[in-house]
Amino acid sequence: MNKLAVVALGGNALLRGDQVGTIEEQEQNTTDTLENLVFLIREGYDLVLSHGNGPQVGNILMRNDAGESMYQIPQMPLDICVADSQGGIGYMIERMLRNVLNKHKINKEVVTLVTQVVVDKKDEAFLNPTKRVGKIYSKEDSEKISREKNWTFKEEVKVKDGWRRVVPSPKPVGIINEKVIRTLAKQGTIVIAAGGGGVPVYIDEKNDIRPAEAVIDKDFASSMLAARIGADEFYILTDVPFVYINYKKPEQEVKEFLNHQDTKKYLDEGQFSEGSMAPKIRACLQFIENGGSKSVITEAFKLEDRSFGTKITLDYED
Amino acid sequence: MNKLAVVALGGNALLRGDQVGTIEEQEQNTTDTLENLVFLIREGYDLVLSHGNGPQVGNILMRNDAGESMYQIPQMPLDICVADSQGGIGYMIERMLRNVLNKHKINKEVVTLVTQVVVDKKDEAFLNPTKRVGKIYSKEDSEKISREKNWTFKEEVKVKDGWRRVVPSPKPVGIINEKVIRTLAKQGTIVIAAGGGGVPVYIDEKNDIRPAEAVIDKDFASSMLAARIGADEFYILTDVPFVYINYKKPEQEVKEFLNHQDTKKYLDEGQFSEGSMAPKIRACLQFIENGGSKSVITEAFKLEDRSFGTKITLDYED
Repeated sequence: MNKLAVVALGGNALLRGDQVGTIEEQEQNTTDTLENLVFLIREGYDLVLSHGNGPQVGNILMRNDAGESMYQIPQMPLDICVADSQGGIGYMIERMLRNVLNKHKINKEVVTLVTQVVVDKKDEAFLNPTKRVGKIYSKEDSEKISREKNWTFKEEVKVKDGWRRVVPSPKPVGIINEKVIRTLAKQGTIVIAAGGGGVPVYIDEKNDIRPAEAVIDKDFASSMLAARIGADEFYILTDVPFVYINYKKPEQEVKEFLNHQDTKKYLDEGQFSEGSMAPKIRACLQFIENGGSKSVITEAFKLEDRSFGTKITLDYED
Repeated sequence: MNKLAVVALGGNALLRGDQVGTIEEQEQNTTDTLENLVFLIREGYDLVLSHGNGPQVGNILMRNDAGESMYQIPQMPLDICVADSQGGIGYMIERMLRNVLNKHKINKEVVTLVTQVVVDKKDEAFLNPTKRVGKIYSKEDSEKISREKNWTFKEEVKVKDGWRRVVPSPKPVGIINEKVIRTLAKQGTIVIAAGGGGVPVYIDEKNDIRPAEAVIDKDFASSMLAARIGADEFYILTDVPFVYINYKKPEQEVKEFLNHQDTKKYLDEGQFSEGSMAPKIRACLQFIENGGSKSVITEAFKLEDRSFGTKITLDYED
């Protein structure tokens, strides 16, 4: 039976920090990234792809603000904005992937599923929103909006009189569509799912699905999805070819293999930065704690060479 | 074996003309509409749902304009805007439908597929764009934008110094995901697909999928999808309980049953208005010409009473 891998596309995979975000840039980056999946497909892997949505949903939020200011068009809540971004990015990835497969004469179906990811309304993240989203406002405007829309704001460190909306980033606890995702992937269809960490929802006391004004970490949602669908391997494609300890210090050291215990130790020592590598490492650990055999962190462009990438397993192989 | 029906949600199903488009309005309308599908589900139908996106993609286009004006955020092309709308609307329909099923204790999976619909680049619609989209500009602004972005504009009839972008509305000729849609629906999963007529794409000489700056009629795309997946019945849910001849004249007549020949005759006589009922009638005829057994046009709220709705079949039953 084929191995099943979940691959989370992030960082430079779709849009680089030095780009403004035109569709041409996004399409080119996406194609370059997807070319590297051909290797996994040729090795016989079934694939589920997830992806980030940071710059894209940021732009959607800004457009919502602008549309309201200029044309009085009602702003959409965060769940709809994330769902919009899943539609647009998912379509782009699916189209580019179909063209990459066509080029390599690989006959595979690809589908994009709009994916709701469940969070717990009692998650303490809801008491302490930390994730900064959307436009930077002046103090005066932020106070006005806070009264009107009940949004929470925090001051920006680097911007004078800059205040930004903060939303909770709760842990994912379920994936609404996990059964369909697993079935399709096991049949050989490449499934694009859980984009942007998923559309955040919670289950109320009547068992109804309600929208949550929150964002979910993409790597955590992907790792949970990977475990839930019984994936064998979990890949996080990011901006660096390896995980390092003593990163950017004179004694920097590449780690090609890491077991659970050592990874946990480095994490506890603060070896991995909180805004960037630490959540990826936690997502990788979560996957192998929940039955996955291997998590890999690397650059998209290094996938075809197995000597690249940091492989995190429960134990070191003998 | 269960019968398979494709149901196109349009008109008042998601957003009414007298509403501004808040998410609360859309959620309530959607729930009210979906309640009426319970009848079909209880009768044992497998279901594929499609939906319009007119007001929503209109708002997305306006927000793109505003985001560029206020914050220099690059505008997304029409294919991405349609895909965004499929994400947002599809998610909303899926969530509301899951809650309706929960309320009625019906255990069914629901998925939302981002759907690309293929058009022919040689379709003569590309030579004569007619579909008005997005913001109304002044003549001066429209000429400037026309030079910058190569958009085509037409004058608005009812707006002084009003010019609006027009895009082609070519006929759908293929659905990229039709196999997966059929398989999932036949397994009993309710599939939401081909929203807004689908993300418009064409196939180039290298067999690559390219975006088309166009919009596809939702009822035509749904009718083609219905025929392609071998659906038995095709429903268009709209603002009127029946199709009429001599509509809004003293001799107005309800048509509960129509065969192909009579429908074609009324269409040729101009009984159905071009902006509204005529394309729906053509979509219904297309379905039964391609092997479907019955097309139905009615209001969502009349679905549970089979004496409502105009049924169009190849021949009248004896």
